[in-house]
Formats: sequence, C-alpha cells, structure tokens
Amino acid sequence: MAELASLADPALKRALADAAAIVGVALDTLLPESEGPEARLDQAMRYAALGGGKRLRAFLVMQSAGLFAVNPTCAARVGAAVEMLHAYSLVHDDLPSMDNDDLRRGKPSTHRAFDEATAILAGDALQARAFEVLAEPDTHADPQVRAELVLAFAAAVGPRGMVGGQMIDMLAEGQALTAPEVTRLQAMKTGRLIYFSAEAGAILGRASTAQRHALAHFGRELGAAFQIADDLLDTEASTEQMGKTAGKDQEAGKATLVAILGPERARAQAERLAEQAASHLEPFGERADLLRALARYVVERGA
Amino acid sequence: MAELASLADPALKRALADAAAIVGVALDTLLPESEGPEARLDQAMRYAALGGGKRLRAFLVMQSAGLFAVNPTCAARVGAAVEMLHAYSLVHDDLPSMDNDDLRRGKPSTHRAFDEATAILAGDALQARAFEVLAEPDTHADPQVRAELVLAFAAAVGPRGMVGGQMIDMLAEGQALTAPEVTRLQAMKTGRLIYFSAEAGAILGRASTAQRHALAHFGRELGAAFQIADDLLDTEASTEQMGKTAGKDQEAGKATLVAILGPERARAQAERLAEQAASHLEPFGERADLLRALARYVVERGA
Repeated sequence: MAELASLADPALKRALADAAAIVGVALDTLLPESEGPEARLDQAMRYAALGGGKRLRAFLVMQSAGLFAVNPTCAARVGAAVEMLHAYSLVHDDLPSMDNDDLRRGKPSTHRAFDEATAILAGDALQARAFEVLAEPDTHADPQVRAELVLAFAAAVGPRGMVGGQMIDMLAEGQALTAPEVTRLQAMKTGRLIYFSAEAGAILGRASTAQRHALAHFGRELGAAFQIADDLLDTEASTEQMGKTAGKDQEAGKATLVAILGPERARAQAERLAEQAASHLEPFGERADLLRALARYVVERGA
Repeated sequence: MAELASLADPALKRALADAAAIVGVALDTLLPESEGPEARLDQAMRYAALGGGKRLRAFLVMQSAGLFAVNPTCAARVGAAVEMLHAYSLVHDDLPSMDNDDLRRGKPSTHRAFDEATAILAGDALQARAFEVLAEPDTHADPQVRAELVLAFAAAVGPRGMVGGQMIDMLAEGQALTAPEVTRLQAMKTGRLIYFSAEAGAILGRASTAQRHALAHFGRELGAAFQIADDLLDTEASTEQMGKTAGKDQEAGKATLVAILGPERARAQAERLAEQAASHLEPFGERADLLRALARYVVERGA
C-alpha cells in the first residue's frame, strides 16, 4: 500500500480526492437532518453515506460525464445518488442475517452504531432518496434524461442486478461455484452499479449509442477487475488496512476467483480485464486519460 | 350515507374485485421468475406481492386515472408498482427486528416462508422494481410524466414519507404520543402512499394543478380515515378475520388514535375524514362515484 502511493498517478490521486470532496458536499446537502422524531433515520442515513469510502463510483460518473461537457453539479448529484445506493447495499449486507459484519470503513457498521431496525430503514430510505435525486429537475433539465437515468439505475440495482447478485452470494456460501458462476455473481452484485456509473455520464451527456456502449463496456470490465482486486486485498491485507473485517470472505466460504484460480492467475485476469476496459476508451482520446489511470489503479492498489 | 352506501356498494365491490384481478395479472407479468440461482429472490418477491390483499392502492390509481381517460394498461402498471412498494414495506415491517410478525394476509410472513436474508433482499428488490416499472416507456409515452411519477413516488416512500413514518413508529413503541403526533406518524407511514395512489392518476392524465391537488387532498384524508378504521379493526376483529395477528398493536404499546380517543370518538373522526375526503371529489361529478363509495367503504368495513 505504501508503495502504491509512490507508484500511483499523481493526477489520478488528485482527481479522486477532488471527486470525493465534491460528492461529500453533495451528499451532505442532499441528506439533511430533519427536526422531527424521524431525525434518527436521517442520522443513520448520514452515518452510512457520509462515512468516507473511496467514492470510486461517483468518480466514474463525474469522469464519464466530463467526456461530454456535462454540468459538473449535475454529475455530482448522480454521483451522490450512486453513492447513496452503494451505502444502502453495504448497510444491508452487514446485517446479522446477511454477512453479520460489525466493522465498515473502519467504524462500527450501521446496525452496530444504531440498531438493526434503524439500519434496515436507513438502507430502505437511502434507496428511495437515490431514485428521488435522479428524478429531480436539478439533476438534468431534460425529463427524458432523468427517466433514462432512473431506468438504467433500477436495472443495475434490482433483482437482475445488485440485489440478485447478493441473493446468489448468500445462497453460494459454502458451495463450490465454478469460475463462470462466480464471474456472473460478481457482475451482478458489484459490477452492475460500476457499469451504471460509467454509463451515467453518457446518459447525462446525451451521447451517441456507440459512446454509451463504449463506456458501459469499460464499466463492465473495470467492475470485474475491481472485484478480483478487492478479493485479493481481502486475502492479503489486514483488517486495519481494509477498514472492514479482512479474511472474512474466505472464512465464510465465499466463492471468489482468487480462491478458485489462485492469487497469481486471478491477478493476471484482473490485469487483462483492466487492459480490456481501457481499450474501450480509445474513441475518447486523451480526455479519458484519468479513466485509463483508474483502470490501472484498481488492479494495482492490492499490490 | 346508508342509502348511498347501499346503492354504491355492489358496484364498488365489483370494481374492487376487477381492479384486484387486473393488478394481479400485471404483477404476475412484471415479476417473472428467472431461471438462474437468483430464482429464490423472484419467488420471495412473488410470494410477497402476489399473495392477495385488497389492492386498495392499485384501485385508487386506476380510478383516479379513469377520471382523465388514461389508458387502463398504463394505470394498471402504476397500480402494480404501488402494490410492489406496499408489499416490500410489509415484508420489512414484519421482520424480527421490526414488528416481528409471523403472519401476513393469512399466510406465514415472507421471512417465515423463506428466511430473514431473503426477506430483506426481496423487499429491497421490490422497491427497485417498483421504480423501474414507473420509469419504463410502457408506463407512459411522455418521459416528463414518467419522471414526475418517479419523483412523487420517491417523496411518498422515502425518509420524509413512508420510511420516516416507520422510523417514528418504531421509536414510539411504549411511548405516550399525543393525537397530533399519531396523526403525523400515520400520515407519513401509511397516508403518503395512499395520497400518491390518488395523485398518480392526475399525473398520468396530465391533469391541471387544481385537479391534481383535489385528488391529493382526497387521498390524504382517505388515508387518515383508512388508518383509524384499520386500528379499529385491529382492536375489534379476530386474527382469523384480519389475516394478520390481531390486537398486536395494542400489545406492542403502539400509539393509535383509537387508544388515545377511544373507539367512539375515533370512529366519528374517521367518518368526518371520509366525508371531507369525498368533498374534494366535487369537481369530478358522478365519474368519481366509485371513489366516493370507497371513502365510505373504508370507514364502514370495520363496523
């Protein structure tokens, strides 16, 4: 990790930090704390959504939107919606009846900091609020764009996307999955939202179908590379470095490509996927250089 | 009242049954069962959403849409989305860390029929799918209408609406709430989705602001009347009649207007609210007769 700091592209590091700061401000504004007795819900939503994280998904939205000269304030709103959705998925994944994890981003997970009922409701409310933000006129003046964002987002996070992937993941615990089965599971569970994040800029920018597909393909392969790198980290890093319980996927008998292929072949596959991802960016020339650097970064951060 | 009720009752009963059948078919189509390992999620979603229920909310959508000659297939899709959302809210409310209820609509609740993790995910997926259906072009050709539906729906079911109300309800257990506090809680927890259901027809029908407000006010007061009637039923009916555990709100120390005002004053208030609700329908003439009959029905069904 220390090595990474010196290897990492300084422009990427700066851009990631900038995006994280911008989306943090957006989340703070979009998730106000109310005066009523329901304030506890707002507190739990803010605890889950504002508690740090790399904001990789928001960065993707903002970078892909930048390719089409989208108003950065609009892109930041979509980035914030994606981060709300991601936060809700972590809150529910950490619940006792799911992964039963007490630690998230170096802090007690939401059901530990509050209680189980509040955590379930905070996740539910974050999902609703994410959809609301996408549909608000401030996100884009054209209702066609807003409706398309909602539609693509719902497809990414619903039963054929993220939640379906989480269902398969729960059922797969202790089962021997094949590499294609694991790949499909992860494409649904984490890949689809990353895919949407890359695609969102094209939707916001009313890009051509070809451009939208190029970004979607970039997002798909980036998401797959990211998942393998994350699984490598889980086996190699300590809990302190991770900010969440390390080694727990192995312990829970979770199927990962690292377990099936071994770390070396898994790392080679992640690198191949990251290169493939970057190849889809060709039409965008050097304006996509930060996205290319991101593809390298996601596979190198575990080194 | 009694005279009108006896005139309208058979027509209302028929219309309610028709709407329930139509929305049942729509839900069956909109929630297909997949082939993959995630089929368990689809099964749980279908179990929760297709398991009967009065379909009052879908009826409201379809009736209010009928005032503006909206294509009934479009209205049924919005009705189905509302019922998906309602089903998800019941699945999560019944969870052990919430109301811990084993019985719903005369059957084991979803976490009893499946398991807790599957129930949480089925609720999450039903919420995403509800938003997706609203944003799909089949729901309305005009993206402005679809974006408005999503926006109004999100406001109804998010932290300032349904989920916020459920949070207050959880916190209020065993607390002595005042009548205005209970009224506000219930307006959020159950009222907002009923309000949206009445308003949805006006959005679909691109009605005037005045017409949209009239239906929203109708929905608001109908929702309040409905909640009091439901609480009266809870104190009076048996578990068998209810299809869910009767008397449990009292046992859990849940604040209701019935507990605060006593059954007689609560019933009088429900009747007053139902009359107020109906008064907003005046501009729609006799085309709103079934909605008027519904306002009477919701307060009479507990008698």
